[in-house]
Amino acid sequence: MTLQEAIASVRNIDDSAAAETQRRLDRLTKPQGSLGRLEELAVRYCAMTGERKPAVPRGILYTFAADHGVVDEGVSAYPRDVTAQMVRNFLRGGAGVNVLARHAGIEVRVVDIGVAHDFEVLPGLLDRKLMKSTRNMAREAAMPRDIAERACAIGVDLAAAAAGEGAGLIGTGEMGIGNTTASAAITAVMTGSVADSVTGRGTGIDERARQAKVEVIERALAFHRPDPTDAMDVLAKIGGLEIAGLAGLIVGCAAFRVPVVLDGFIAGAAALIACGLQPRCRQYLIAAHRSVEQGHDVLLKHLQLNPLLDLELRLGEGTGACLGMGLVQASVKILTEMATFGEAGVSERSS
Amino acid sequence: MTLQEAIASVRNIDDSAAAETQRRLDRLTKPQGSLGRLEELAVRYCAMTGERKPAVPRGILYTFAADHGVVDEGVSAYPRDVTAQMVRNFLRGGAGVNVLARHAGIEVRVVDIGVAHDFEVLPGLLDRKLMKSTRNMAREAAMPRDIAERACAIGVDLAAAAAGEGAGLIGTGEMGIGNTTASAAITAVMTGSVADSVTGRGTGIDERARQAKVEVIERALAFHRPDPTDAMDVLAKIGGLEIAGLAGLIVGCAAFRVPVVLDGFIAGAAALIACGLQPRCRQYLIAAHRSVEQGHDVLLKHLQLNPLLDLELRLGEGTGACLGMGLVQASVKILTEMATFGEAGVSERSS
Repeated sequence: MTLQEAIASVRNIDDSAAAETQRRLDRLTKPQGSLGRLEELAVRYCAMTGERKPAVPRGILYTFAADHGVVDEGVSAYPRDVTAQMVRNFLRGGAGVNVLARHAGIEVRVVDIGVAHDFEVLPGLLDRKLMKSTRNMAREAAMPRDIAERACAIGVDLAAAAAGEGAGLIGTGEMGIGNTTASAAITAVMTGSVADSVTGRGTGIDERARQAKVEVIERALAFHRPDPTDAMDVLAKIGGLEIAGLAGLIVGCAAFRVPVVLDGFIAGAAALIACGLQPRCRQYLIAAHRSVEQGHDVLLKHLQLNPLLDLELRLGEGTGACLGMGLVQASVKILTEMATFGEAGVSERSS
Repeated sequence: MTLQEAIASVRNIDDSAAAETQRRLDRLTKPQGSLGRLEELAVRYCAMTGERKPAVPRGILYTFAADHGVVDEGVSAYPRDVTAQMVRNFLRGGAGVNVLARHAGIEVRVVDIGVAHDFEVLPGLLDRKLMKSTRNMAREAAMPRDIAERACAIGVDLAAAAAGEGAGLIGTGEMGIGNTTASAAITAVMTGSVADSVTGRGTGIDERARQAKVEVIERALAFHRPDPTDAMDVLAKIGGLEIAGLAGLIVGCAAFRVPVVLDGFIAGAAALIACGLQPRCRQYLIAAHRSVEQGHDVLLKHLQLNPLLDLELRLGEGTGACLGMGLVQASVKILTEMATFGEAGVSERSS
């Protein structure tokens, strides 16, 4: 399935599956609605997939890694090499996302879509490298438009692969030193916000460095004037490759009707691009958590997404998505494993 | 260990274990503090237990069931029989708490401490019945003071049993038609709040019924004038037996240095009593979630507890505690399974 085919094939979610699921939930041994957002999740899961009695979904999380030319502007507290080093850490299972994925029973797949390093053959690494880092968006387009499209197409292919293997839930992860700068720039453009209001401290820069990061973003946006009605234009001019891969993954999930659990700010920026390409993608999104990164709340409101968790996370990688995926699985178990009033011989409400 | 011995043996948590844990977290491959409240949980877990390299804790959750005489005043949407019916549902594994406990790998133990029903011998049910329901607090003391003390002692014994079996984490659950009324009354007394501000809709009564529930509570408090500086007096006059059992369980957990994960409003009322008996108990509490029940937020602030989750739950049973226990286990895994910068060969921050 090409990117264009995926975009064209996204359908609205299934309202009748949602209504039937709510009726089932209302017969379970609990006051109606008393499981709150877990019930909402079960309803949305069935509406997205069209299933009435879903199996507990197998979860796969893709962590896309890529570097950012804008790091030359000094926007990050960490050196660029950390992207490649963390890829090795992911493959050895020692990173935060690995720990939380194991905890939730989620498979992590690591995708090199643009790391500025020549890896030897590394078992487990999906080599989809299109460039060795984007270019510096403060001076030129981050990537050619056709590369942005190819990066999205890689995401669609990976969604198709996971769906074909029976994954019922897909999570988004990323690694890329400098990628909160790209995400803040995308958020400013796509939500019509000033850069200052959506630019945070990333991995931990101080307020002076944050101000400098805002100026880099303002300069880049003034130079490129990306067109918010043309999401591919925004993506190509700002980057990054991992954000493009995630945007394609989201489009693919929506096309294959696989619910997609967003991690934090970078995943949210990718969702803005995906919804720019196909607004119906929004219906297939589950926001795992609210990040500390200040632009995240802005984009969640823009996408009308209410995050499940607020644990003051700001690591990325897919860490928050793993926790959110665990809650989705729990919600499906509530739907399918709880007894009804009739089955359990429990009296219904008297008033 | 008697209740008085348990109260006397609660020590302050271990600040040096906390500091050492934070240093370990700061060496892991992530920006410092970027796992937010998961890091806070790992630090608190080690401070409570005194452990430096804890194993992933085995979790046991006790669901105490009891009936409330105040149901005669028409305070609940469900008939009293539901308490006994739900006990059977718990034992068959069909209730919400069973599903979420299985999801998180938690063992549920069901305790009859005051259900108004003569059960035949039921495999798995811990028979600790002290009364068949409390008395109607609107007209007389819910229970004699010595029964309240014995109910607390049962909780201490069960904490000791779990600790002796190696549980590193204990959760609180409850079932008792009418118990949001008792919990609201306890919260009003122990936090110095007016009844109206801490009385919610329980299992789903309408606003008129809520007003009547407030009046029942006001009448009971005017009649009994419970002494907020004497938590056992409050417990005996208001009830219930499951709240007393939970209060004792909390004291026992603190005495044995086992972190205790609170479910919602009823667990919070029990925590108010436990902290009334021994203020240091507060240091061993983890609030799993913020309930929809309006008094819950009042008591959490009073106890200076910041809940982990806000999923609009209001079922009780221990459902929210199961989700919170899963997060505690995840936080311990972060501490013990993530690679350090040195181990992973990842560069530390450059600025």
